[in-house]
Amino acid sequence: ITIALLPGDGIGPEVVAQAVKVVDAVAKKFGHEISYQEALVGAAAIDVHGDPYPEETHRICQAADAVLFGAIGDPKYDNNPKAKVRPEEGLLRMRKSLGLFANVRPTFTFPSLIHKSPLKLERVEGTDFVFFRELTSGIYFGEPRGRNEQGTKAFDTNVYTKEEIARLARMGFEAAQKRRKHLTCVDKANVLATSRLWRETVQELAPEYPDVEVAYEFVDAVAMRLIQWPKAYDVLITENLFGDILTDEASVISGSMGLMPSASLGAEVKLFEPIHGSYPQAAGKNIANPLATVLSAAMLLEYAFGAMEEAEAIKAVVNKSLEAGVVTEDIADQGQAHSTSAVGDWLA
Amino acid sequence: ITIALLPGDGIGPEVVAQAVKVVDAVAKKFGHEISYQEALVGAAAIDVHGDPYPEETHRICQAADAVLFGAIGDPKYDNNPKAKVRPEEGLLRMRKSLGLFANVRPTFTFPSLIHKSPLKLERVEGTDFVFFRELTSGIYFGEPRGRNEQGTKAFDTNVYTKEEIARLARMGFEAAQKRRKHLTCVDKANVLATSRLWRETVQELAPEYPDVEVAYEFVDAVAMRLIQWPKAYDVLITENLFGDILTDEASVISGSMGLMPSASLGAEVKLFEPIHGSYPQAAGKNIANPLATVLSAAMLLEYAFGAMEEAEAIKAVVNKSLEAGVVTEDIADQGQAHSTSAVGDWLA
Ligand SMILES: CC(C)[C@H](C(=O)O)[C@@H](O)C(=O)O
Ligand SMILES: CC(C)[C@H](C(=O)O)[C@@H](O)C(=O)O
Repeated sequence: ITIALLPGDGIGPEVVAQAVKVVDAVAKKFGHEISYQEALVGAAAIDVHGDPYPEETHRICQAADAVLFGAIGDPKYDNNPKAKVRPEEGLLRMRKSLGLFANVRPTFTFPSLIHKSPLKLERVEGTDFVFFRELTSGIYFGEPRGRNEQGTKAFDTNVYTKEEIARLARMGFEAAQKRRKHLTCVDKANVLATSRLWRETVQELAPEYPDVEVAYEFVDAVAMRLIQWPKAYDVLITENLFGDILTDEASVISGSMGLMPSASLGAEVKLFEPIHGSYPQAAGKNIANPLATVLSAAMLLEYAFGAMEEAEAIKAVVNKSLEAGVVTEDIADQGQAHSTSAVGDWLA
Repeated sequence: ITIALLPGDGIGPEVVAQAVKVVDAVAKKFGHEISYQEALVGAAAIDVHGDPYPEETHRICQAADAVLFGAIGDPKYDNNPKAKVRPEEGLLRMRKSLGLFANVRPTFTFPSLIHKSPLKLERVEGTDFVFFRELTSGIYFGEPRGRNEQGTKAFDTNVYTKEEIARLARMGFEAAQKRRKHLTCVDKANVLATSRLWRETVQELAPEYPDVEVAYEFVDAVAMRLIQWPKAYDVLITENLFGDILTDEASVISGSMGLMPSASLGAEVKLFEPIHGSYPQAAGKNIANPLATVLSAAMLLEYAFGAMEEAEAIKAVVNKSLEAGVVTEDIADQGQAHSTSAVGDWLA
């Protein structure tokens, strides 16, 4: 089997390298043969090809059995509102052209890290929910978008079809059936036409999943309740932009931001990536936390190949590294930090 | 002087009534003559006039010196995606037709309430920032919005002009000059055309405020950092929808959600309202916390009439009620809850 490796920008290459070490060790132990195809994406691809998602990268992803992705983004493009091409466009085109319409982002706690949470222990202990974020439509892709001729007015379009909503919602319903049977549809139906279509579509699907209890909540209320009562949630479904904001918010409440993996599903070839960004300040310093990428690789083995035992082996060794304190500076106790590559070696 | 009273829906009438008691007591003490004009808005106005913001209500607001508003929203409209008219439309039309383009939402802590925060004490202690949310443009108002003919596709439009951005940004810069001289522009410039215009416009204005340090952050990052490092922020400016989500998120971190006031500025007649919503489950039960509305009335005296001493008197008595434990059930110690009207009477 072949995994496409897209390290991307910033700390991406460093953390992906550790995941590869760990996957190789697992493959060896379980007698699998895994080959890798590396490809450029983001600022790294602009530098070489002038294109953040080159045709060649797309071919490599399509030909692979799954994709492991690092991170995207480079500050040199951020404060230049007139930049012609942006690293993030590569990410968006990649999601769209691979058909990855559902981004699955779990939030759960690690007993050995929960004290790092900004929330009080009793609020966050036992938190276990998962977001299904729509990933290939909404205001990220809607047309028209741009400026008027004089450049004094800008516009973006949020668009959703019933079909786009339904296929994402079904994934949420099915996940809820396998979990605590609670689904929350997050929208802004009191203001947005798109949100009203979300709510209507979910209401129409609900009778097909009679065992799932459905709640409808406004995005502003969820932004509050995620912090107040994170344990109240099970499965949440939402549109692309709300999902972007809320999953990032969610990722910090457990205290384990540096450990949170994600999966992008919806097509034959699935993509796995850490939730954290490219963290440019840390790039090249061998200090970034590789665990989210390592756990994304575990998700990859599980979701893409059904390799449950192999995935469990990875999760188990990650737990061991946490217990043994073989971790990077972001979660290490004072003076006990290990380097990115040292953590990778230890895990492997 | 005349204050227009718009109690609105849910707990709105109960909390506004307490604010009136307190304002009357202050007026008496300082020898002012205040008259009130009450008007309907939201579901309450739909029930009577079939219109959530009747012409008569608009006239009363325009003729008044300031507006004190309660809350809007009724669950009977929320899960009916096909409802012809919605309470929230009244709120949006009110903001738009009164020209209230800036919503000012401070987040600060009360020593006696900080233990109610879901965040750890050391994270939240000393938090003091203020959001300037654009309130009359963006995806809340952009056209086109609606459905295709078959009803299978919905769309909304996010629009901003440079002018709309600049006038809001200037308010933020000026506030920053009077505070800790730090301004954060919150956007999604790596994806949205409107956000790139925000960033460009703020960059152009920045040289006029050389004493203010400006940071540009993505909305998803701010959703995280507000919880991780709330003390890092001073003044934040942002578009309508991001402001809706982030100010609600911000309102819970201090533990004083029930106390947070807000002001809507931009025109002759200013509007003041609590940050919390209509809380329909509590309506009519005489249990809702009136302090956010009472403090909104204090903001009204200060911002609309420059009545600083009067405003300070209200803030002082609110502090006293907190210390004395004369508070509603949401913030009272076990078994020590007072009713909404009892708190109002005590304050007056
Ligand atoms: C980098 C950016 C375009 C991207 C997004 O907004 O989708 C990121 O924030 C994410 O959540 O994967
Ligand atoms: C009720 C709703 C339309 C409103 C908004 O989204 O602006 C509310 O959430 C607010 O923040 O005042």
